[in-house]
Amino acid sequence: MMGMKKSREFIEEAGAMLTHLREEEPLVHCMTNDVVTSYTANCLLAVGAAPAMIPDKEEARQFAAVASALLVNVGTITEPQAEAMRAAVDSANGAGRPWVLDPVAVGALSLRTSLANELKMKKPALIRGNASEIIALAGFKASGRGVDSTAAVDEAREAASMLAEETGAAVLVTGPVDIAVAKGKPVISISNGSPLMTRVTGVGCAQGAICAALATLSDDMHSVAVATALVMAVAGDMAAEKATRPGSFQIALLDALDAVDAEELIARGKVAV
Amino acid sequence: MMGMKKSREFIEEAGAMLTHLREEEPLVHCMTNDVVTSYTANCLLAVGAAPAMIPDKEEARQFAAVASALLVNVGTITEPQAEAMRAAVDSANGAGRPWVLDPVAVGALSLRTSLANELKMKKPALIRGNASEIIALAGFKASGRGVDSTAAVDEAREAASMLAEETGAAVLVTGPVDIAVAKGKPVISISNGSPLMTRVTGVGCAQGAICAALATLSDDMHSVAVATALVMAVAGDMAAEKATRPGSFQIALLDALDAVDAEELIARGKVAV
Amino acid sequence: MMGMKKSREFIEEAGAMLTHLREEEPLVHCMTNDVVTSYTANCLLAVGAAPAMIPDKEEARQFAAVASALLVNVGTITEPQAEAMRAAVDSANGAGRPWVLDPVAVGALSLRTSLANELKMKKPALIRGNASEIIALAGFKASGRGVDSTAAVDEAREAASMLAEETGAAVLVTGPVDIAVAKGKPVISISNGSPLMTRVTGVGCAQGAICAALATLSDDMHSVAVATALVMAVAGDMAAEKATRPGSFQIALLDALDAVDAEELIARGKVAV
Repeated sequence: MMGMKKSREFIEEAGAMLTHLREEEPLVHCMTNDVVTSYTANCLLAVGAAPAMIPDKEEARQFAAVASALLVNVGTITEPQAEAMRAAVDSANGAGRPWVLDPVAVGALSLRTSLANELKMKKPALIRGNASEIIALAGFKASGRGVDSTAAVDEAREAASMLAEETGAAVLVTGPVDIAVAKGKPVISISNGSPLMTRVTGVGCAQGAICAALATLSDDMHSVAVATALVMAVAGDMAAEKATRPGSFQIALLDALDAVDAEELIARGKVAV
Repeated sequence: MMGMKKSREFIEEAGAMLTHLREEEPLVHCMTNDVVTSYTANCLLAVGAAPAMIPDKEEARQFAAVASALLVNVGTITEPQAEAMRAAVDSANGAGRPWVLDPVAVGALSLRTSLANELKMKKPALIRGNASEIIALAGFKASGRGVDSTAAVDEAREAASMLAEETGAAVLVTGPVDIAVAKGKPVISISNGSPLMTRVTGVGCAQGAICAALATLSDDMHSVAVATALVMAVAGDMAAEKATRPGSFQIALLDALDAVDAEELIARGKVAV
Repeated sequence: MMGMKKSREFIEEAGAMLTHLREEEPLVHCMTNDVVTSYTANCLLAVGAAPAMIPDKEEARQFAAVASALLVNVGTITEPQAEAMRAAVDSANGAGRPWVLDPVAVGALSLRTSLANELKMKKPALIRGNASEIIALAGFKASGRGVDSTAAVDEAREAASMLAEETGAAVLVTGPVDIAVAKGKPVISISNGSPLMTRVTGVGCAQGAICAALATLSDDMHSVAVATALVMAVAGDMAAEKATRPGSFQIALLDALDAVDAEELIARGKVAV
């Protein structure tokens, strides 16, 4: 029961999901922050999914029941957006659509912290954050310095496990090494990726969106978390071979999300069970 | 009276408008969706126009009377933005400025659908959308799956003709083949362009903005629709010679909007009357 | 007392600040316009700072006391954002954090003009604008045509001096030649840079953000204004050697903001005291 899957199996499963995603082109309703709307949409398009951003509360309620999946990212939350997110989450749950919570900069800031703590109990399929955010969302003391993760991913392992236990969601903690955690499953580490991924805004937020796209293709959210981390981090490796500075890396990463496939994942993937 | 213009004449007219645009640098007031603000502004700058985004209702009213033209794109509409758009449209009309309606994802979503149906009766100079959107705005049954046009452009021909008749606007339906429709004018098809244009967010929305820029330079909105389609689609052809993946294509398209000129339009334009 | 510093000293000081910035990675709270959020964040990341955008009023108040510096850019101002900016400015002032005012398109538009006139009396460390904006903010008659600076930078010199006198802020006027003005200091001109910088949206707005980042590293805001202008304009020179059209220039400028260093500033800087 504990998932005796090996690294190679996780990688092959991720490759199959990526192939499947390009056949299905899932429509992802992104309620995300103002800074990354365009890059998130372009990452989804590059990887093979279809993005849509619908901020009005009533329209968000309507659309969440029609879209394949929903992303809720609190990075530039305001009161009207919080209301719309609540409506969309309830609607997605009602329609049986998976949804992903990205608790950007949760910790010291009041509106997003109370909202994320409320939403995490509404059955997200996955939660994605950096170490600081996952630590804060689990109720541990956070550094509060915003989007920069200062806590090491390793320190977030315990918090992620508690959060997975409490919410039932799979938890993807991203950083120099990504970890995927779910109740009753082994902690999986994915160590691909480039430091340039933190020199461009929106890479982490786009991972949340890719989580949502992949969540439409499997019932195993632990595998979805692993696949998301692998796809983005292997694309990061491929982009870092083309570009050494942040502007051109940002573009190369979009090209790499288009180019990455099952074969690249198998050739490059570094997964430790 | 019915426009016996030939393909070559439409292309030469588009080239003349593009040259004229670069002399006039029209200032386009873009009330557009959150995902594409930056790319729209960069497309306008690349082609030779000047963008400005003014969301506050009172400021939008003031600015619409001063700017050369107005774009209204309902892609991420909210109630406050709907109010500001109404004020801006009335102000543009009062000042004799042309304005363009882009009914993004109109159909199943309530706020945008009622707003677009209200605004289409306020004398837009042009309406731009994909086939699904034009079909929905004409009151036909739409697919409602959002920004992805599932209906073929051909099927939108009848809807576009009805919409042109009802509103007095020229209608540009974009897709693998673009068509330009206006009351009492022949249906013109423009078949340049690259599939990569749908792998990048904001290309269609930027076409709406270029419609607005070109609408300041002619009284013949049918020719403006043809010129807009030609400029973007020929730039798409040029960009596709430089880039084969979506990230680098997005940038190459901006470069191509800067490089495209009357000569390129004549050499490459595929227009069928 | 009048600052007998020579050109070379300003350039060396700018180089030292840039080196220092990369050690400190100051966290800049950007309350900026919707068009440039992503490019501003990417410019800050490229140059070595950390961006965060927090729009909610209460969260903005909280965050402005924690972040290293605050940027207030009124380019797409709305009433809720004006309220949040007031709260953030008061909080930054209370916590002793420097803040920068960018009065985008101030002049003919009512909300931004009254807000900027209110905020300029709340002790900004720096004010950055193009010639038209600085002229308008100083209370002179402005052209009102929006973000395009039609008045020459030279004509803005008197307005900038009056504004510096009235507010106590250093004033950076950007254009083909940038000028840095502060009370009791000589007017400094920086004449690096490329015309392509005006063919891409957000370069001026990103300068405001870099002002804020550098303001955390010195008590001399006049030198910060010079350093900001130098870093961006020398990066512009470097980018113009790599790219000749606006799309690729936009990306090359991000790469150049990563590559520019004290050595490049000394080799390329054109500063006139």
